[in-house]
Amino acid sequence: MTYCVGLLLDAGLVLLADTRTNAGVDNISTYRKMFTFVDEGERAIVIMAAGSLSVTQTTMARLDEATANPEARSIMSADTMLEVAEMVGETLATVTEQVASRMGAKSQSARASFIVAGQRRGGAARLFLIYPEGNFIEATADTPYLQIGEHKYGKPILDRVVTPETSIEDAKKAALLSMDSTLRSNLSVGMPLDLCVIETDTQRIAEQRRIEPDDETFSAMSVAWSQALRDAFQEIEI
Amino acid sequence: MTYCVGLLLDAGLVLLADTRTNAGVDNISTYRKMFTFVDEGERAIVIMAAGSLSVTQTTMARLDEATANPEARSIMSADTMLEVAEMVGETLATVTEQVASRMGAKSQSARASFIVAGQRRGGAARLFLIYPEGNFIEATADTPYLQIGEHKYGKPILDRVVTPETSIEDAKKAALLSMDSTLRSNLSVGMPLDLCVIETDTQRIAEQRRIEPDDETFSAMSVAWSQALRDAFQEIEI
Repeated sequence: MTYCVGLLLDAGLVLLADTRTNAGVDNISTYRKMFTFVDEGERAIVIMAAGSLSVTQTTMARLDEATANPEARSIMSADTMLEVAEMVGETLATVTEQVASRMGAKSQSARASFIVAGQRRGGAARLFLIYPEGNFIEATADTPYLQIGEHKYGKPILDRVVTPETSIEDAKKAALLSMDSTLRSNLSVGMPLDLCVIETDTQRIAEQRRIEPDDETFSAMSVAWSQALRDAFQEIEI
Repeated sequence: MTYCVGLLLDAGLVLLADTRTNAGVDNISTYRKMFTFVDEGERAIVIMAAGSLSVTQTTMARLDEATANPEARSIMSADTMLEVAEMVGETLATVTEQVASRMGAKSQSARASFIVAGQRRGGAARLFLIYPEGNFIEATADTPYLQIGEHKYGKPILDRVVTPETSIEDAKKAALLSMDSTLRSNLSVGMPLDLCVIETDTQRIAEQRRIEPDDETFSAMSVAWSQALRDAFQEIEI
């Protein structure tokens, strides 16, 4: 399993992904699920992946390979973020079909989805969720976040605090608390985490860091949030 | 969909169920999912149902019909709560098989699960979750609650505040807040709610009430909890 969340704010994009991959509970590994493509000042793109590792890796490898050739059509040469989302969708659909065709009755497990976030100079910052079939949806002011993977545990906090006007700092906090709830409830979502921030109209990565399992700030936040919830619980009257 | 939760505390049993049933989003109805069987001072049993309405109704009808004959083996004559759980499991398995055999390729949708809670005089208060195949698990001190239906949104609050030592009042609050998170996130879980309390060693229903959509106490709790979460969020530092 996986949990990735992207927030589209007036101030920019905040992206957070876990790194746990498992084939059964007895085969757990760490794989990066967040990938950045940056041409500073021109375009900054973050892609996050959930689902079958063979599908997500092959999809990312093909997208990445295309960028090596500056003449070729790739996410680094696409004219708009919409075109980037379409490329990811097309590549994903092709890979899914190829992998599924080899899997017969198990083809349903060859599924993956992606979050594509970014901004190209002259365009708006945009956030897309790409489905396994290659179609996609886009975040809007009404629903300024998108999730892939194990999304349920971490949704209530996002629904309560995130709006387009939310600051980057508050959005990072909301994403990390959303992840914290998910980590607690689903063993197949695990540390370390990858966090990335793109500020609006900069077309560069303002912050990118890996939060390791022994990260003191994250641990302190997790403990403080638990305590705050218990305190709030005690104060509520029914 | 459905959300039902049962809590097994030293002080007693707290049960909460929603009432929304849907066959597609354009066909939504209200059906009771909580059923009580009481012989005051002797036994008090609460059963909650989730899943295919044809399966849960037929199962409950058969269990209920058996109780009409005081000579027959029924959940009202069973010697122990374990035996009650076994009866519910057997009845459910039989009904599931019968319904599924008529449904062919759609047989997977003929599934239901139950929570069975109660106490018989001389025995302990017990809480079971009955799976569609009729097998079951039981709540213990380590995990003093069981959920059926849409369980994910409402799990984090239970994990954080419920232990066997939790009071009945706090358990009611935790169950209602757990339901509140679920109602917000899943449209197919809906008001009114049915709440029931059995205090340990009384073998009677201490409290049973329906919480209607316009219930002021529940609305006030819901608003206060949202505000408390937002306040806690603001105070957390990262």
